[in-house]
Amino acid sequence: MSEEINGIILNENERIDDLNREGYKIVQDPKRFCFGMDAVLLSGFASVKRGERLLDLGTGNGIIPILMAAKTEGKEFIGIDIQKDSVELAKKSIQLNKIEDRVKALNCDIKNVSEIFKNGEFDVVTSNPPYMNEGGGRINDYSPKAIARHELFVNIFQLAEAASKMLKFGGRFYMIHRPHRLTDIFVALRENNLEPKRMRLIHPFEGKEPNMVLIESGKGAKPMLKVLPPLYIYKEQGVYTQEVYDIYYN
Amino acid sequence: MSEEINGIILNENERIDDLNREGYKIVQDPKRFCFGMDAVLLSGFASVKRGERLLDLGTGNGIIPILMAAKTEGKEFIGIDIQKDSVELAKKSIQLNKIEDRVKALNCDIKNVSEIFKNGEFDVVTSNPPYMNEGGGRINDYSPKAIARHELFVNIFQLAEAASKMLKFGGRFYMIHRPHRLTDIFVALRENNLEPKRMRLIHPFEGKEPNMVLIESGKGAKPMLKVLPPLYIYKEQGVYTQEVYDIYYN
Repeated sequence: MSEEINGIILNENERIDDLNREGYKIVQDPKRFCFGMDAVLLSGFASVKRGERLLDLGTGNGIIPILMAAKTEGKEFIGIDIQKDSVELAKKSIQLNKIEDRVKALNCDIKNVSEIFKNGEFDVVTSNPPYMNEGGGRINDYSPKAIARHELFVNIFQLAEAASKMLKFGGRFYMIHRPHRLTDIFVALRENNLEPKRMRLIHPFEGKEPNMVLIESGKGAKPMLKVLPPLYIYKEQGVYTQEVYDIYYN
Repeated sequence: MSEEINGIILNENERIDDLNREGYKIVQDPKRFCFGMDAVLLSGFASVKRGERLLDLGTGNGIIPILMAAKTEGKEFIGIDIQKDSVELAKKSIQLNKIEDRVKALNCDIKNVSEIFKNGEFDVVTSNPPYMNEGGGRINDYSPKAIARHELFVNIFQLAEAASKMLKFGGRFYMIHRPHRLTDIFVALRENNLEPKRMRLIHPFEGKEPNMVLIESGKGAKPMLKVLPPLYIYKEQGVYTQEVYDIYYN
């Protein structure tokens, strides 16, 4: 079963969601992996200046390039993903939003970026990568959701290597990840000449442990990390803090 | 000018302060370096079990071994420092508190610990090290305060190496440091087989950036960092939060 909306063919389970931003929409398939709050928080943390080019590593349905295209005056936003079906979803959203001139999605393994792009080609790299390293040999599940969550096809060290290759000197790498992986993250970044410059821990509620972390690193930058005040998601059950509300809607 | 109190000779500028803990006191010289809140916070974060032996690297006037001796049932607490005069102060406090059987202070360079102790001799290592790396060639000041603050005689990599050598497998290293150095800290710890297991950022006020960080690492431990909720120092100007009050007085 499929239906056509605005010239886009939607397969069974696929739906169109509104992004509450400049009328932009996204095509999603709940059976695969819908974008979550982490993508929104990353898009609120990252910055792209007028004329800059962005590469999103492991883009899924393209949520981050699309949000960044909606919010910034960047010139080009390219998302790559190892999953062909995710890239097809991203292409539908790009077509639906009529942003083919600024946003592109490509089916490509993060480990092979150098075969497609020149080193140092991008000003900004973003990533909301798989964050669990428990997978490895223990997991037999290669579903789209498992691939998005577990380091099955790319780990943090390979990700940092790819980001570093793609960035020009002085370029910025923005990532959202999990606090329990911080040591791996810092070691992987430093090993790849990506120096952590700004970090923000995200806590579900005040007084609770953080469950996400935003990190900006600079290619070739000097060591000196600025740790920002905590970001709290909810002020009470089901009610966002003003700051999160602003990230979603402003 | 000097005076004798309880058999302790106090030199000019030296004074005896109460630690508000089991009647313990400390000899300090404000012209050198008085213990600060960081030492108290570290002593609240670290734990020593009955019968364990602790080594404090860069002990200054011995505040950490003395506080840990007052709070725990550890067997032995040894502080080392490169500054002879600091070690003399520590010895006066040990004598004043009559804890010579459990607490010792030695004049020793952190880089040379292996010449004095056997590798793997300790269950716990603590350190409140110099935290500024801006020093290097730019600083000509080798005053006691400068040595305590700047990495003039020991840097974070040498410190982690010494801590790792001194700890038995499974031993714990507790450190208080500065958030802007987090990348150096994580890299230095991992390089020396000290895996960060627990981290707590310390903020002067809620909503402000952190200015200190507590880190526990485990020698030979598996990667998996627990980031704790933030610790706030003041609830309003000049008034400690209940948690800090409890660390000081309980």
